[in-house]
Amino acid sequence: MTLYGGIEAGGTKWICAVGTGPDDLRAHERIDTTDPETTLATVVNFFRRQAGEHGPLVALGVASFGPVDLSPDSPTWGFITSTPKPGWAHTDVAGRLSRQLGVPVGFDTDVNGAALGELRWGAGRGLGSVAYVTVGTGIGGGAVIRGEPVHGLIHPEMGHLMLPKHPEDDFAGICLYHGACLEGLASGPAIAARWGRPAETLPADHRAWELEAYYLGTAAANLTLALSPERLIFGGGVSKAPGLIEKIRHQLVEGLGGYVQSPIIESGAESYLVAPELGDSAGICGAFELARKVGGS
Amino acid sequence: MTLYGGIEAGGTKWICAVGTGPDDLRAHERIDTTDPETTLATVVNFFRRQAGEHGPLVALGVASFGPVDLSPDSPTWGFITSTPKPGWAHTDVAGRLSRQLGVPVGFDTDVNGAALGELRWGAGRGLGSVAYVTVGTGIGGGAVIRGEPVHGLIHPEMGHLMLPKHPEDDFAGICLYHGACLEGLASGPAIAARWGRPAETLPADHRAWELEAYYLGTAAANLTLALSPERLIFGGGVSKAPGLIEKIRHQLVEGLGGYVQSPIIESGAESYLVAPELGDSAGICGAFELARKVGGS
Repeated sequence: MTLYGGIEAGGTKWICAVGTGPDDLRAHERIDTTDPETTLATVVNFFRRQAGEHGPLVALGVASFGPVDLSPDSPTWGFITSTPKPGWAHTDVAGRLSRQLGVPVGFDTDVNGAALGELRWGAGRGLGSVAYVTVGTGIGGGAVIRGEPVHGLIHPEMGHLMLPKHPEDDFAGICLYHGACLEGLASGPAIAARWGRPAETLPADHRAWELEAYYLGTAAANLTLALSPERLIFGGGVSKAPGLIEKIRHQLVEGLGGYVQSPIIESGAESYLVAPELGDSAGICGAFELARKVGGS
Repeated sequence: MTLYGGIEAGGTKWICAVGTGPDDLRAHERIDTTDPETTLATVVNFFRRQAGEHGPLVALGVASFGPVDLSPDSPTWGFITSTPKPGWAHTDVAGRLSRQLGVPVGFDTDVNGAALGELRWGAGRGLGSVAYVTVGTGIGGGAVIRGEPVHGLIHPEMGHLMLPKHPEDDFAGICLYHGACLEGLASGPAIAARWGRPAETLPADHRAWELEAYYLGTAAANLTLALSPERLIFGGGVSKAPGLIEKIRHQLVEGLGGYVQSPIIESGAESYLVAPELGDSAGICGAFELARKVGGS
């Protein structure tokens, strides 16, 4: 029986599971992210135990926080590279797990993984391409085109798109690199810094959400203009704010200003800009899909 | 012998050729764009004459002005759709040429075609992905990822990216749809409107070029963040302004602010953001490549 290992590797926790997809997701375990040695050793032990119980894994998929090296020819393929996360810069993840567990490892960004999971089983079922944007403590985005995650120079970093400021917004933004990029203007901490209180305490009719929709909708317009995916998926904690997805859609259609002539956009983008369907399982399901791509079948 | 037909279909002229690539480009002919009936009839006659002389074509590739319908399942696949060009809205191009010439037709946007041509024979040789931006009377952009042109909802329309205004720029922009989008701020006519004289009359040390580099470099940053192509190619008449490519590179690196950590960016992006190598032949070579993709071999 085909069984995959999946890891959603984050800066605060690593979610590990074995299974084959959202309807067969076994032995879900949360491992705290401490130092690389301890974390990876705990992860390896988890998968060894699972293999003992369920039989050998065919392959492992890792959807990781980044930035990561995805160049197949690079000596540091499968590494987390320049992260500010203490102790984790230049850490071999994929190679090490592959050697210690004796299985091929598919490796990608957490957001490319989530895009892949949603494309296979969630809000992108049946499509060839989606972009996935997560809005929470940070903002990240990944894309799948013709069924494959997008890599190149490195990988998409959609959270840092440069956007026009809202004409009534004089907030300088909080991104350490760019100030007023998308993440600097619209992440959870940016909302909190702008209004002096956590995003989740702001009522649905607060002006914060109008600005938030302006920036996320403008980012959605830029992704449509740059990539033209078949669907845009907005996930993460902030995107769950009541009514926000509708407001982002409205801004997207307004922002495109009738230029991108598609009946899907003209009718309000309801089927184009959507919430994820796999919820918190998108990453781990994407990891299974990364495993399947290297493990065959 | 394999022989392809190629068309670069523009709003003022259609360039038609037969051949197989930049070193075998025969019978290059320029046909003025008048009404669809006349233009397409002249094009069909050209290829019939060529086939009589050189032998039958294996396939035809068309790299067209747009917007175009590229959805393989659409009843209007291969049509120019909503163009403001009088008489050309909702015109069947690919289907009609295929029926009249009796060959399969590969059809895409002019800029996806140019990206494909540069990837195969020009500034993107040996790579898997490039984005191609042309800056002239308008601004357009296409992309090839894993060797295939990018389509989805429709196709990229990179010319209309939404960008932060330069802090010292109060020009409202000239895009009919968006005012101050990339095309509205940085196309040839935008430069002329801003400074009251044609772009090509502005000396290399004119402040115009600093603003131009700001907008094109910021667009390059957004394309890097959204798509992460292996290379960015800037073509078109405006991009040829002396020293401009170097200024765009500088702005790209500045704009990314050290966030995209790649030695290629950190060393100044000289090998990343480049001029096209095929010059004015990129489109027609891309058309041959579109033909090859549907015609085999």
